[in-house]
Amino acid sequence: MANFEKKELTKKSDNFSGWYQDVVLKAELADYAPVKGCMVIRPYGYVIWENIQAELDKMIKALGVKNAYFPIFIPETLLKKEKEHVKGFSPELAVVTIGGGEELKEKLIIRPTSETIMYAMYAKWLQSYRDLPILMNQWNNIVRWEKRTYLFLRTTEFLWQEGHTVHETHEEAMKMVRDALDNYLKIYRDYLAIYGYPGIKSSAEKFAGAESSYTYEILTPDGKTLQGGTSHDLGQKFAKVFNIKYLGRDKKLYMPYQTSWGFSTRSIGALIMVHGDDNGLILPPKISPIQIVIIPVFNKNASKDKLVAKAEEIKEKLKNFRVEIDLRQEETFGWKLNDWEMRGVPLRLELGEKEIRDKKYSLVRRDNFEKVKIGENELSLTVEKILDDIQQGLLNKSKKFVLDNTREVKNYEEFKKTMKAHRGFIRAYWCESSKCEEKIKKDTKATTRCLPLEDMDKKEKGKCIYCQKEAKRKWLFGQAY
Amino acid sequence: MANFEKKELTKKSDNFSGWYQDVVLKAELADYAPVKGCMVIRPYGYVIWENIQAELDKMIKALGVKNAYFPIFIPETLLKKEKEHVKGFSPELAVVTIGGGEELKEKLIIRPTSETIMYAMYAKWLQSYRDLPILMNQWNNIVRWEKRTYLFLRTTEFLWQEGHTVHETHEEAMKMVRDALDNYLKIYRDYLAIYGYPGIKSSAEKFAGAESSYTYEILTPDGKTLQGGTSHDLGQKFAKVFNIKYLGRDKKLYMPYQTSWGFSTRSIGALIMVHGDDNGLILPPKISPIQIVIIPVFNKNASKDKLVAKAEEIKEKLKNFRVEIDLRQEETFGWKLNDWEMRGVPLRLELGEKEIRDKKYSLVRRDNFEKVKIGENELSLTVEKILDDIQQGLLNKSKKFVLDNTREVKNYEEFKKTMKAHRGFIRAYWCESSKCEEKIKKDTKATTRCLPLEDMDKKEKGKCIYCQKEAKRKWLFGQAY
Repeated sequence: MANFEKKELTKKSDNFSGWYQDVVLKAELADYAPVKGCMVIRPYGYVIWENIQAELDKMIKALGVKNAYFPIFIPETLLKKEKEHVKGFSPELAVVTIGGGEELKEKLIIRPTSETIMYAMYAKWLQSYRDLPILMNQWNNIVRWEKRTYLFLRTTEFLWQEGHTVHETHEEAMKMVRDALDNYLKIYRDYLAIYGYPGIKSSAEKFAGAESSYTYEILTPDGKTLQGGTSHDLGQKFAKVFNIKYLGRDKKLYMPYQTSWGFSTRSIGALIMVHGDDNGLILPPKISPIQIVIIPVFNKNASKDKLVAKAEEIKEKLKNFRVEIDLRQEETFGWKLNDWEMRGVPLRLELGEKEIRDKKYSLVRRDNFEKVKIGENELSLTVEKILDDIQQGLLNKSKKFVLDNTREVKNYEEFKKTMKAHRGFIRAYWCESSKCEEKIKKDTKATTRCLPLEDMDKKEKGKCIYCQKEAKRKWLFGQAY
Repeated sequence: MANFEKKELTKKSDNFSGWYQDVVLKAELADYAPVKGCMVIRPYGYVIWENIQAELDKMIKALGVKNAYFPIFIPETLLKKEKEHVKGFSPELAVVTIGGGEELKEKLIIRPTSETIMYAMYAKWLQSYRDLPILMNQWNNIVRWEKRTYLFLRTTEFLWQEGHTVHETHEEAMKMVRDALDNYLKIYRDYLAIYGYPGIKSSAEKFAGAESSYTYEILTPDGKTLQGGTSHDLGQKFAKVFNIKYLGRDKKLYMPYQTSWGFSTRSIGALIMVHGDDNGLILPPKISPIQIVIIPVFNKNASKDKLVAKAEEIKEKLKNFRVEIDLRQEETFGWKLNDWEMRGVPLRLELGEKEIRDKKYSLVRRDNFEKVKIGENELSLTVEKILDDIQQGLLNKSKKFVLDNTREVKNYEEFKKTMKAHRGFIRAYWCESSKCEEKIKKDTKATTRCLPLEDMDKKEKGKCIYCQKEAKRKWLFGQAY
């Protein structure tokens, strides 16, 4: 344990974005690609995405939604059909103008989202009420042009799922919108251990082409807010322009109601930010690529074979968990500790000759560095308990942070001061006029993030924090990433 | 069973490509997209891909290979680094020239394969022999421009996995090349029930930029051959141009050896072609989205509730299988039989009042329409046995077809006649000169498909079927799709 080298890591409290970039690169989650705005997701980062995918995919399928695949190319004319939609996305488009060596007659847009290409097909497939609901989802790659890369959070290409459904009634569509949002909430709370507010977006902040948008709003340690996943009530807007109709039970033609909803690799950015500390990542056990790392202490006097055999034996005992044995010979024990801390593995088991003799093993938690000595027979049960405790502890900590940083203010002066001093969420009455929202943004960089679901049906009465006119509900404001 | 409507389907023997298109569209596996050369993979087709993915992904991970994700965009300069590589792919490229509303300074190519973008990163990451082997795989979308769409088989965009590994020695790389090919062989034989020849490609037919390419060659019912999956020994070709080096055990700089290998949604095209019949798809049980469909017979006198309850009860008994109950009320029993035959579900269980009374159920096989009556207690065991039998039977049939259509010929005249009359594989001595290969292609449209692995080390002596010069080994010739 002599040669304790510390991997250089910017302190989280000193320079948050420097720390973030360091952690992403040094934990080998991702790297900058030789294409502007793009990133490479490295295996350690990709397993996190696979783990999220596995859980979310199950939830999506449980709603009766089936996976499919639609082309990455959208003909320009298709994208332009819904006016708000194209207006919202046109600054971010990547355009293919050459194919197979020839200039294309019609430019092809690389999907920034797939409403238009999917709904052109839905219009073709949908004939009768018996074909409804149409419930489809895609796991794919999306391109929205970015000048500056912010790993995971803002990249020209990212990965996501996008669900797109069609229903007979608006009620049924709204149920899907809320069910999809509820899945995102579950993924965030139960798997990523990230507390946030589910709510509805303001008219200015909603998805381009939606009647209304729902969101799960997250708070990062630097006090900024992040849209964790969104679910949209598209009403009949796209049905109208894509001429989607069906023969109803009474043999008359009807226009259906649609929804779309998406969850992306951005969530991994939130995960890193919310839980990490000055030693690197802290990963919630449920989605951590490795849950326990066994580190044999290869001292000069130790029998390597004996240590490795014991490590394998323990791994077998812990086969219900994701276990890795660190067999590296060239690195010091201290270097390895740092490396696994950097990578955020929730639990490590240190295994030396003494531990084998005593039949007691040291478990060290990544979240608080607490160490316990556990006998061989209790190992599996104890590991399960500790991992549960870490998972719950991370969520509790995240919840406390969000609640501590959700503030109420008396007037607009205090609003401005508070936003400047702390950022975070401010909960305030707002008259729901876009003008006030714009003015507030100009003054404070804060926009409405959402009206929390739990406040939607409250009957309150107050005065808009900006214009003092009558306001019915308190909205959450914050500076967006 | 009065209203027995037959879904119109072209006969396989009458018009093979018409039949193929009909089946793909009517079984709702895929559809033409409103973008030239592109297709939509519909849920029923996509589940087949998910089932293949699940198995192949396990096999890939068992080799120690980890999944990752690299950008879809490749800067033009990167793609041009390896000369043979860019020459091979340049006619098929889709090019982005506009991003975020501006003309790009450097054009971006949409990946036709990811060697170049990945190896630019490998060059950065690889430092020492301790970083080797690098073993990565991607599941992603690929674009290679096509003027004419042939659903699944030839589309501008397709889905695949591409594995890319880096090794210290050529021996180690060759082991990976063969292990990857072996996985493809297993997927084809054990899951897709498609017999074929694993072998090595000729110099003219190998991957652009490879030292050598290995393939699994398939024969379709119209006698054409299809490359089922390929695995490449890249030698040090890309390492040279991307300057990939590492510090060896002796502290000297070395250049590593690389491999790449891919398996795509093309395989679904082969699957449809090889097994289907005049009634539609026939799916091997191991990858079929649905393994057994229960069809309650909703006659006028039947109690609907009783039938549905019994169907659910049987589904529960068969919970180890993928079971669906056909609850549709509007369609006739006959229409449903046709529909499930079209969709290729391996086994159907017909459930009427009589069956419930007798406690014996009719099972009908899709492959040969054999019907058996089974008592309730033997159900699960019998289903397992029949599904195994169908799976094995499909492979046997495929093997017989390939062997029956692999012919030997005495001379070039017979070669030409045979290829014209039957297509299929012809096994013939070839001197391994590209000139003869080209001439044969001109005369017969047939190229060398591969030298089968089992013949690679044979020491034979014969005369080239074309030039009569000395030849050491017999190659397989065929017309490629």
